[in-house]
Parts: sequence; C-alpha cells; structure tokens
Amino acid sequence: MPAYDPDNIFAKIIAGQIPGHKVYEDADTLAIMDVFPQSRGHVLVIPKAGSRNLLDADPAVLSASMPAVQKIARAVKEATGADGLRLVQFNEAPAGQSVFHLHFHVIPVYAGEKVGPHASGSKADDAQLAALAQEIAARIA
Amino acid sequence: MPAYDPDNIFAKIIAGQIPGHKVYEDADTLAIMDVFPQSRGHVLVIPKAGSRNLLDADPAVLSASMPAVQKIARAVKEATGADGLRLVQFNEAPAGQSVFHLHFHVIPVYAGEKVGPHASGSKADDAQLAALAQEIAARIA
Repeated sequence: MPAYDPDNIFAKIIAGQIPGHKVYEDADTLAIMDVFPQSRGHVLVIPKAGSRNLLDADPAVLSASMPAVQKIARAVKEATGADGLRLVQFNEAPAGQSVFHLHFHVIPVYAGEKVGPHASGSKADDAQLAALAQEIAARIA
Repeated sequence: MPAYDPDNIFAKIIAGQIPGHKVYEDADTLAIMDVFPQSRGHVLVIPKAGSRNLLDADPAVLSASMPAVQKIARAVKEATGADGLRLVQFNEAPAGQSVFHLHFHVIPVYAGEKVGPHASGSKADDAQLAALAQEIAARIA
C-alpha cells in the first residue's frame, strides 16, 4: 500500500485551504457534508491526523474518532429524520476509496428510498448543503 | 429506537451458547466469520458489551473496538490477498441492520469481483469458514 500523501482534498480542507460545509470540529476530527451525497444528510467524518485509510492509521486516532462519529450520527438522524444510518469506510481504490485520507461516511437511509452510488452522483447544491450542515451542527451536544 | 434486547444471536455466540467461527477475541471484542459472506473472508467484529447499534453504544466501547477492527482488517487483507476492504456498520432495519447487537462488517474486495448483497446470499460452507478463520487468526499480531 502506498504511503499517505498529504496532497489530498481532505488535508486541504482541514488546513483551511479549501472550503467545506463544516458540521463539527474538535482537536482530532473534522466533519463536513459530502458534496456528492448518496442521500440527504450524508456527512464525512475525517480524522485530522493523516493516514491513507484504516489500515495505516494510528490506533489512538481511530479510537478518538469513534465518539465523534457517534455524536454526528445521532445528530444526522435527528436533523434529517432518517429511518436508519450506514457507517461506511473504504480502503483502497478497488474497495471504492477515492480520497486517500482516512474518512468515515455517515449515510442516512430513508425507508423506501434507495441510497445513491458512491462518489458518482451529482454535486449537491451548496446552499442546501450549508443549510443541512447548520441543522446537523445545531443538534450536536 | 427500541432498547437493546440481549436475546439475539450475537449475544448467544459471545456467551458460548451458539458456535461461531472465531477469528479473534479479547476482553472487549469477539470477531467471527460471517456465515452469509458478501465476499470470501467477510468477518464480523462484535463488541461484547450489549448495545443495539452505534447510536446507543457506550463511547468507550466504540473506542475500544476500533484497534481490534484495524488488527482484523489487516489480517483479513493479508490472509485473503484482497485488493481492498470495506468497513460497514448498519443502524436500524431500513439501513440494513438484521441482528440488533452492534457489529462491524470487514468485507474484503477483490478487483473485478462484485461484492455480494448484505444478509441475503447463501450460507457458506462451514469447513471453508473454519479454514479461513484459522488463516486470518494466524495473521493477527
């Protein structure tokens, strides 16, 4: 597996060089709206420490991420009224990974609605993403 | 969301009341082969502490699980020669959850091979699962 390369879009969003629709931030973690959402309210939880994916991550970083993932998942469910949620994390391109900086997908599921394809839908409207980010952020304890 | 109900198959496997193809066990976590694998080497990582899913889990349990998930993911990739891995966790039935005890799916992905459907494939051969469990277990540091 190649080494982590800091020249990736999530590292740039964490560094503030590229904007993102921020939902949550703490010392270890940033969460933003996915701009190619698989469903309404799809959020990415991104550990700030650079690793390519789960396989090369510092175990302490993984442990620190999960309480944030949980807080965000609860807030996404409340804000969107989703009937369920999927937590998904891709490792390497054949598995679907498209940005090589560890991130977790929190994907709301709505009964009777299909979840869209990964990283191949259409780009969401920025104003809608900004509004969703605010609604989710407001529900994080 | 309903409360956690300890009358579920994973709680019974953890309690030793029902057999499972064990890959890994520590004080907090059990990992077994999925008997309805979505691909060869599909493993379930199950925190022993009872929670329905991610939403009601003790954050400390989530944190403790992730280093085990990582160890298992690395071992699965080595043992199977998979080209990638997906980590997936379902919350509530509309999202695909079928056993209501928190668990993480570690799903190997092989280039050019489709990953099967969740919880709807055919039951794997027990001898093959036992052999895979041994090969993965042998690679866990």
